[in-house]
Order: sequence, then structure tokens, then C-alpha cells
Amino acid sequence: MDQALLEDLVAANRILAEHGVIDAYGHVSIRSPDNPKRFFLARAIAPETVQAEDILEYDLDSNPIEARGRDSVSERFIHSEIYRARPDVMSVVHNHSPSVIPFSVTGVKMRALFHMASFIGEGLPNFEIRKVKKGSDLLVRDPKLGAALAKTLGKSPATLMRGHGSAVTGENLQRSVGRSIYLEMSARMQMQAMMLSSKITFFDAAEVKASAPVQDYKRAWPLWREKALAQAKADRR
Amino acid sequence: MDQALLEDLVAANRILAEHGVIDAYGHVSIRSPDNPKRFFLARAIAPETVQAEDILEYDLDSNPIEARGRDSVSERFIHSEIYRARPDVMSVVHNHSPSVIPFSVTGVKMRALFHMASFIGEGLPNFEIRKVKKGSDLLVRDPKLGAALAKTLGKSPATLMRGHGSAVTGENLQRSVGRSIYLEMSARMQMQAMMLSSKITFFDAAEVKASAPVQDYKRAWPLWREKALAQAKADRR
Amino acid sequence: MDQALLEDLVAANRILAEHGVIDAYGHVSIRSPDNPKRFFLARAIAPETVQAEDILEYDLDSNPIEARGRDSVSERFIHSEIYRARPDVMSVVHNHSPSVIPFSVTGVKMRALFHMASFIGEGLPNFEIRKVKKGSDLLVRDPKLGAALAKTLGKSPATLMRGHGSAVTGENLQRSVGRSIYLEMSARMQMQAMMLSSKITFFDAAEVKASAPVQDYKRAWPLWREKALAQAKADRR
Amino acid sequence: MDQALLEDLVAANRILAEHGVIDAYGHVSIRSPDNPKRFFLARAIAPETVQAEDILEYDLDSNPIEARGRDSVSERFIHSEIYRARPDVMSVVHNHSPSVIPFSVTGVKMRALFHMASFIGEGLPNFEIRKVKKGSDLLVRDPKLGAALAKTLGKSPATLMRGHGSAVTGENLQRSVGRSIYLEMSARMQMQAMMLSSKITFFDAAEVKASAPVQDYKRAWPLWREKALAQAKADRR
Repeated sequence: MDQALLEDLVAANRILAEHGVIDAYGHVSIRSPDNPKRFFLARAIAPETVQAEDILEYDLDSNPIEARGRDSVSERFIHSEIYRARPDVMSVVHNHSPSVIPFSVTGVKMRALFHMASFIGEGLPNFEIRKVKKGSDLLVRDPKLGAALAKTLGKSPATLMRGHGSAVTGENLQRSVGRSIYLEMSARMQMQAMMLSSKITFFDAAEVKASAPVQDYKRAWPLWREKALAQAKADRR
Repeated sequence: MDQALLEDLVAANRILAEHGVIDAYGHVSIRSPDNPKRFFLARAIAPETVQAEDILEYDLDSNPIEARGRDSVSERFIHSEIYRARPDVMSVVHNHSPSVIPFSVTGVKMRALFHMASFIGEGLPNFEIRKVKKGSDLLVRDPKLGAALAKTLGKSPATLMRGHGSAVTGENLQRSVGRSIYLEMSARMQMQAMMLSSKITFFDAAEVKASAPVQDYKRAWPLWREKALAQAKADRR
Repeated sequence: MDQALLEDLVAANRILAEHGVIDAYGHVSIRSPDNPKRFFLARAIAPETVQAEDILEYDLDSNPIEARGRDSVSERFIHSEIYRARPDVMSVVHNHSPSVIPFSVTGVKMRALFHMASFIGEGLPNFEIRKVKKGSDLLVRDPKLGAALAKTLGKSPATLMRGHGSAVTGENLQRSVGRSIYLEMSARMQMQAMMLSSKITFFDAAEVKASAPVQDYKRAWPLWREKALAQAKADRR
Repeated sequence: MDQALLEDLVAANRILAEHGVIDAYGHVSIRSPDNPKRFFLARAIAPETVQAEDILEYDLDSNPIEARGRDSVSERFIHSEIYRARPDVMSVVHNHSPSVIPFSVTGVKMRALFHMASFIGEGLPNFEIRKVKKGSDLLVRDPKLGAALAKTLGKSPATLMRGHGSAVTGENLQRSVGRSIYLEMSARMQMQAMMLSSKITFFDAAEVKASAPVQDYKRAWPLWREKALAQAKADRR
């Protein structure tokens, strides 16, 4: 893999942890730019400790290409099945972001009310694992569950996962990371708005359509990336 | 521009980021003390990384005087049109402060209940961009939208911007920055007070009139500024 | 003044700022152990920057004994009038702690529900400055307002101040500082408990009586003090 | 005691403080792997300052084996009586975690809604000290109160303590620490979910049964431990 892209992925792991979107248990992947049937994902360690040598390559059955003793995360099927179902997706984030979970367990719809998270207006489904597997441990730990999640996701930019978190996609890494960060913020804002009033002005369809492509998080990315890689370098010492 | 004022503006960018009032996307400007038809604003980078060489000068049509390859923020018209409409305003902050947005989308009025943010009692309007442009991306990206925002602002110290954030003014930089910080705090307090009770003692007109001029944030400013410039210096290394 | 006590007071300023109980505008004082008609209070700077040389001595009319060009805080009358009215009080904190203000503007009573803040069960009055001075800027900036505040306080450990913050006392510095920190935490807990249910088990009178003397914050104090003084020392460099 | 286990316990004290689950007043213990009638617990200092030499060994009557002038925490009976009653428990955390206390004072049941805290679904009782001792200071400061707490706990993984905090157990240290951290997070999520809707999908019994054993916090532990011990080492200097 290209060195800059590898550094992007290392940075993404740390950026998401720094923003409180993932803790020791979320993960972020990118599809290989060279081979659409491959993707890159860190081994099973806390994301904020990820370095370049922790990144593994996987095929779309979630088999590591060259594990060399490195453990895979059990939920890598979230990534492989979304990449299989959605050729447009180049990056996937799975997180437990705390303000999103209350929406996932109540079925209250998240809606677009903040321009930085306007993609929510494209509609976020909610994956109820119980419909696919009763009595599960909530983890998407096999191809069947991954495929069911990808089916719930459909053409949406992200899906909530009941009692668990969310899966967020992007046509590049910046987008999946930025969306994850602003999804968390927008969830908090929506909870607060709902407490203030039952009458909320959400984005209308035209505003969603106009806003979503503009919000690419390109101004934030260099700031986030530089800080994260400086920390990664400091951690080496 | 005067060196101390330039440092003030560098500091202001970083102070607002440090207080969580802006993230990678807010901005802060000052009107030129030498020419009321000019203002200073950083180029399109994350505010917490701004250094002196990132500051551009603009005319009131938001044309950069000497860009030298530096990109301008698309929403600079917020600044130029407020300076055009309000000769008393010497500084403008545009932010996405998170606790203010729930008010902007519900239309619940922000009111003065904390002496440090007593300026709220002068009345904060709410800019509904939809009245000026349907299906927008919410960004104030041209003179017409900037002028409409300035019109909504009127003689108020600040205006909310529906689904987006706010624009806060001051007769100097300390005031616009301090008001932005305490606007966020006061929004949180008002949400909490509204949850506790439907009967809230807001400031009366006489209290607003007596308090607002006193709250100049002069004791906080040297602390904020010193920390911010120490960080700016450290970032050079 | 004794060197250790002076360091205690420097530490207290920084501890309160570190815990988010005061920002650039709160203050903390101690009564002189040598002369009950004197007290010590920092000059008008941000508390988190206070060093030993910033501490002034005052008489009970709030006149500085030896100002040497150092500015006094305008609200020092909170301290002098409480010391005058309450011989048992050896330390006073004035703060704007954010979770307490919603109670002050709604008149919802704070009640003891967390053992670390059991002193709340002794009853916290709420100072309504409007009853003493109409159209004020909310600041307790003269002896008359200070005396009115002290009268509202009565024999209580603390009083809320409507739209402004609180004044917290102690028979020593640890107690006034510790109470201020746990008052803020208890206010948050009470707001949350009130959202969860209308039926709350508050401390009964016997529990308040048993708990309050035990809560002296003596285990926390050495930790807080050491960190604060290390920072004060680092700031010298 | 084994050196690695001793370091685990030092780390646990600091991890809990770092995550805001304990402040200067919580504590964490482990049962001796060599003698089930003994346990290890730090002396009465702020947990975030604990070093190896601060760890004491106790018998199940909470007598220190070799105090050497080190003060014991008054609430060590929480630990000894739980170890006496529950042979399966190898570690106990007592904390004042802030989001749990509102549940303890309202009697609103905590329920499992987040897979990382699925153990809540095994049922968390609430210890009402008033039933055992009227007019107490809420502290579990003798064997009788400890035994009553252990009785309320029963076979549950944790018990709330009204107006005070909680006691959390584990069959190892990772489990008691991880559960304490995610209990706090889950409490916040449940409060938010209850504000959003009265209809919440909690985990069903089969999901609790499947999830709880999986959640061992093993991926988080090395990250947490390494950071904590690096800090402990830095504090020596």
C-alpha cells in the first residue's frame, strides 16, 4: 500500500479515539486502491495505539492475506460485507459513539439539523440484529451477520446498530472519519433540541441534497492527521 | 497591521478552538483600525493552527488585498457584510458552538440568565437562510446572503443561524471572543434551567442594561491570550 | 502570613480553576489566623495564574493593607461581609459554577443526595439581589450588597446567588474548596435525578447531621494541593 | 504478592481515576491468589497517586497484616465482606461514579442497553443503608454494614449504593475495572434514552446471557495498564 495512505489509516484510528468516537473497541478500514476486492484494517488492538505494522490486508471473505501472527478483530465482517455490497464505499468506520446509542435503542430517527452532519438527512437505518439472530452477543462476527448489516445499510451513508453503535461509510477515509465525528455531535444536538421543543426545523430534502456533497471535512483533515501522526511518532520512543 | 493586534487575532483563533466554541470551521475577524473599509481574517485552515502569516486583509466586498496563493474561507461574507452594515462593530466571530444550535433549530429564544452573558438580554435574532435562498447548503457564501444575515442581525450583539451556528460581534476582539465563549455556557445553563422548571427568573431590562457594559472579559483576556500565544510559539518548533 | 498557608491559598485558586468551578472570575479567601479582622485574597487576575505575590491582605471594610499597585477584585465585599457576620467562617469561595446557576434562576431547591456534598442538606438559601438593589449588574460590589448577601447566607454553609453563582464557606480552606467542587457535582446529579423520576430519596435530617462533619475532603486535599503547586512552580519558568 | 499482579492493582487505581469513575475517594482491591482469605487494597490516599508501596494486605475481618504506619480506608469492609460472601469474586471496585448515583436515589432500575455493559442485565440491586442503620453517614464503615451490603449484592455482578455510588465485582481485576467504566457510560446512555422515548429496547435474557461472558475488556486492558504504569513511573521522578 501507498505510504501516505497507510499513514492516513494509522491517523484515522487515532483521530477517532481522540474525538471520543471510538474507545478500545471501534475500527476503521479502507478499501485497497489497487484491488477493489481487498481492504486494510488494523489488528485487534486499541485503535489509539495503532502503528503502520499493525495494519493487515484482507480479502472480501475477511481472510487476512498475511497475518504473521497478528490477531484479527472479530467484527471485520462489518467491513468486508459492506465493501462487497457497496462498490462506491472506499472506507468504513465501526464505532460505539455514545450519543448515537440512545437513538439506536429507542428507534427515534436521527435527522439532519446541523450542516456539518447533513448526510444524516439521506436517512440512517437501524440494524436490529435480533431479526437475524436471536440471543446474540450483538457482535457482527460472521459473514451472514455482516451481509444482513450491509442489507440494512442499503444505499445509506451509515446505519445505526441497536444497542451497539453504528457503521459509517465514505467514498474516502476523510469522509467516513468526519461523518463519524459529526454524527456524534449531531446526536447530542438532536437530543437537546428535542428536550427544548417538540417543534424542530430539520433540513428539508433540497438542503440535504445541497449540503451533503459540500461537507467533505477537508479543512479539518490536515489538522487531525498531523496531530495524530505526531502522537504516533512520539509513541515509538 | 500593528504587531500586537495581529497577535491578538492569532490568539483569538486559538482561544475559540481551545474553548470548544469553534472546531476546524469557525472564524474570527477584526476590522482594520487604520481603514474602516478593511478587515483581517485568517485563510481557510483550522483556526487552532493559525499563525501571523495566515492572516489576510480584505475589503468590504470580501476581496483579499494580497492573497499570495492563500485560500479564502467561503463564508467571509458574514464578516464583510456585518462590517458594512454596522460601523460600530470592530470584530466578528462565526462559530458552530454546539449548545447554541438546538436553540437555532427550535426557535426557543435565548434569554439572559447568567451575568457573564448578559448581552443575550439585548435580544438575539435567528437567521433563517431558507427565507432568502431555498435549498441552500446553509453556507453564507455570497454578498447577498451576507447582507441578509446582517439585516437579521440588525443592532443586536449576535444572531443565531438556523442549523448552522451563530455570528457574534463586538466593539473589540475581546468582546466578540468573550461573548462567544459565554454564549455557549449560557445556552447550556438555559437548557438545564428549562428542564428544572418552567418558571425562570431571567434578567430584567434594567439588569441587562447595567450588566452588559461591565462584561468586557478584560480579566480573562490576558490569561487566554498568553496561553494561546505560547502554544502558537511551540507549534513553530 | 505563614508560608504553608500562603501556598494553600495559591493552590486553592488553581484547584478551583482546574475543577471547572471557577473560570477567570471567581475568587477564594482565607481569614487571617493571626487577626480575625483581616483576610487574604488574590488581586484581580485569573485565579489559575495566581502566585504568592498576588495575594493581598484586607481589613473587614475590604481595604487592602498594602496594595503596592495591585488591583483589588470588585466583589471582595462578598468576603469581608461574610467574615464580619460569621466568626466561625475561616474561608470563602465565590464561584460561577455552571450547574448551580440553573438552580439559582429557577428557585428549585438544592437538596442533599450525594454523601460527598451532604452539607447541602443544611439548607442553601438563594440570594436575590433584586430585593436589595433594582437594576443592578448583579455584582456584589459594595458593603451594603455584601451585608445583604451575608444576611441571606445566615448560618448556612453556602448561598446561591441568582443568575450569578454561589458563595461557599468553610471553617478552613479545604472545606470551602471541597464543598465548592462537590456542590457542582451534586447539582448535576440532582438535575439528572429529577429527569429520571419525580420521586427522589434525599438525605434525611439525621443522615445530614451524621455525614456533614465527616466530609472534610482531607484525603483529596494533598493530591489537589501538590498538583496545583507543581503547576505554579512550572509557570514561573 | 506477584510483581505483575501488584502492578495491575497500582494500574487499576489510576485507570479508574483517569476515566472519572473514582475521584480521591474510591478504591479497588484484589483477592490474594495465594490465600482466598486475604485481599490487597491501597492505603487511604487518592487512588491516582497509588504506588506499589501503598498496597496493604488484609484478612477477611479487614485487619491489615502489616500496616507499618499506613492508614486503612474506613470502608474496607465493603471488600472484606464481599470476599467472604462470594468465593467467585476475585476483585472489588467501590466508586462514586457520577451517572450511577441518580439511579441510586430514584430507584429507577438500570438495565442493559449497550453491549459493552451487558452485565447490567444480570440485575443490579440498590443498597439502602437506611434499612440497616438509621441516621448513618452513608459510609460502610464496619463489618455489619459490609455484610448487609454483601447480602444486598447477592449473586449480582454489582450493587448500587443509595446516595453514595456502587460496588462492582469481577472474577478478575480487568473485569471489575472494565465493568465500572462501562457502567458509568451505560448509565449516561440510559438517562438519554429515557429522555428520548418511553419505549426502549433493552437486551433480552438470551442476549444478556450471550454477551456478558464475551465482555472481558481484554483489548482495553493493555492500553489502560501501559498508560497508567507510565504515569506511575513518571510520578516517581
